[in-house]
Amino acid sequence: MVDILHRVGVKTPSPEKVYEALTTVDGLAGWWTDDTTGDADVGGVIAFRFPPGGFDMEVIEHRPSEHVSWKVVDGPEEWVGTTVDWELRQDDEMTIVLFKHQGWKEPVEFMHHCSTKWATYLMSLKSLVETGTGAPSPRDVRIAFPD
Amino acid sequence: MVDILHRVGVKTPSPEKVYEALTTVDGLAGWWTDDTTGDADVGGVIAFRFPPGGFDMEVIEHRPSEHVSWKVVDGPEEWVGTTVDWELRQDDEMTIVLFKHQGWKEPVEFMHHCSTKWATYLMSLKSLVETGTGAPSPRDVRIAFPD
Repeated sequence: MVDILHRVGVKTPSPEKVYEALTTVDGLAGWWTDDTTGDADVGGVIAFRFPPGGFDMEVIEHRPSEHVSWKVVDGPEEWVGTTVDWELRQDDEMTIVLFKHQGWKEPVEFMHHCSTKWATYLMSLKSLVETGTGAPSPRDVRIAFPD
Repeated sequence: MVDILHRVGVKTPSPEKVYEALTTVDGLAGWWTDDTTGDADVGGVIAFRFPPGGFDMEVIEHRPSEHVSWKVVDGPEEWVGTTVDWELRQDDEMTIVLFKHQGWKEPVEFMHHCSTKWATYLMSLKSLVETGTGAPSPRDVRIAFPD
């Protein structure tokens, strides 16, 4: 079992805006993909779509301003059954975001790609909260050519 | 044992420029840190320095345009003894870079930080080869505030 781990610090006085960007369809569309639909409440399923495909995430837990957890219920075979966790913690004027995408069966090349791509989306989330503008798909940062 | 994995694709007709950016002091200074010194040949030790500290890497292997391997011989406790591997492969007009930073004992918060930070440095390497300009320290992408 191998995991994708990341950490960013978002300059914001409280975790509220980051939490909102992780727990509402509008917030998620602001940094991950324009094409975000579904039910973002606990027990609901959010559909994230990108030009090449997408992911359906069941919302497992919302602990306000502290923790968000999703389970992948549909998407690429390597993703189905994996979990995505977001832990938030305030540290002075910065919200620390600890990200874990866990449960990958094998460290396949696609996992290397997803690890780098998640980093760019976390930077997009940081930018959304700090400046009001993220870089969601299809305006996402390209890490390969074609991506 | 947990690993940091990444993948980028660099638009370039052959892996030569990427390989050079990984195996020469000037190349490394172009995307990781301005303050790169030492002996970049196999068996040598390269000293990478950043405002908060740095890393000494022993060069373990150079396989031209295919593989570069380093071992961390000095630096933060969590890094010492870990290995950094770079695999290169040409895919049409793109050099695929597979990156592995292996041998971390625990998935500590610092590892989450380093994973995200590596992604930004791989984007810097990609930019260096594609445009001639990278974003090495101290002009690196800030992923937290302060970083």
